[in-house]
Amino acid sequence: MEAAKLQKAVQMYVEAFEKADPGMIRKLYAADATVEDPVGTPPRRGIEEIIEFYKTAFGMGMKLKLTGKPRCASNSVAFIFDAVMKEMAFSPIDVFELNADGKVQEMRAYWGPENVS
Amino acid sequence: MEAAKLQKAVQMYVEAFEKADPGMIRKLYAADATVEDPVGTPPRRGIEEIIEFYKTAFGMGMKLKLTGKPRCASNSVAFIFDAVMKEMAFSPIDVFELNADGKVQEMRAYWGPENVS
Repeated sequence: MEAAKLQKAVQMYVEAFEKADPGMIRKLYAADATVEDPVGTPPRRGIEEIIEFYKTAFGMGMKLKLTGKPRCASNSVAFIFDAVMKEMAFSPIDVFELNADGKVQEMRAYWGPENVS
Repeated sequence: MEAAKLQKAVQMYVEAFEKADPGMIRKLYAADATVEDPVGTPPRRGIEEIIEFYKTAFGMGMKLKLTGKPRCASNSVAFIFDAVMKEMAFSPIDVFELNADGKVQEMRAYWGPENVS
């Protein structure tokens, strides 16, 4: 898959937070996608559960700021960012895996207490 | 899994490159581990194939420099670094997944041409 397509998915993700727009999340993810955030917790399954998850984050005023170039490999992209809210911030590494339609099929977020400030 | 155990695996990995020591790779990985570097290429399977892969990197004088805090989640850790050689450098994000024995069972490296300088 072209890196440009993967980079666009990451940009769309950042923009969805910027605009707090669940509609962009719906466009970004496959209908049967999974979101495991953080890795090790039960995944959210399917677009409706996923949208509810992001609505909570949007409600908290969360904004994302990329802190490095996305790393594109095959149909996956790993990216590093600060997730900033009013009173706290944390710094995950997320991985998107896209399907043949260019939708995010699987998201995994790597972060733990050491990455919260 | 304690974050300390995951962080130690990352430190051991950096040190293995520092010392160009295949013995440390043998200690770090499970006997039946897989290494997919970069993601999308056929994985190296089993410790002997994996050691050959690292011997090549060590032979090129590759050294690793972490460029951020490792992100620990469950039994996985994602980490970001520069891999520096004489004439070039590249900046992957690697993900280790450890087994119950604390050995790396699965490694996936996310990087592409855009991450080479």
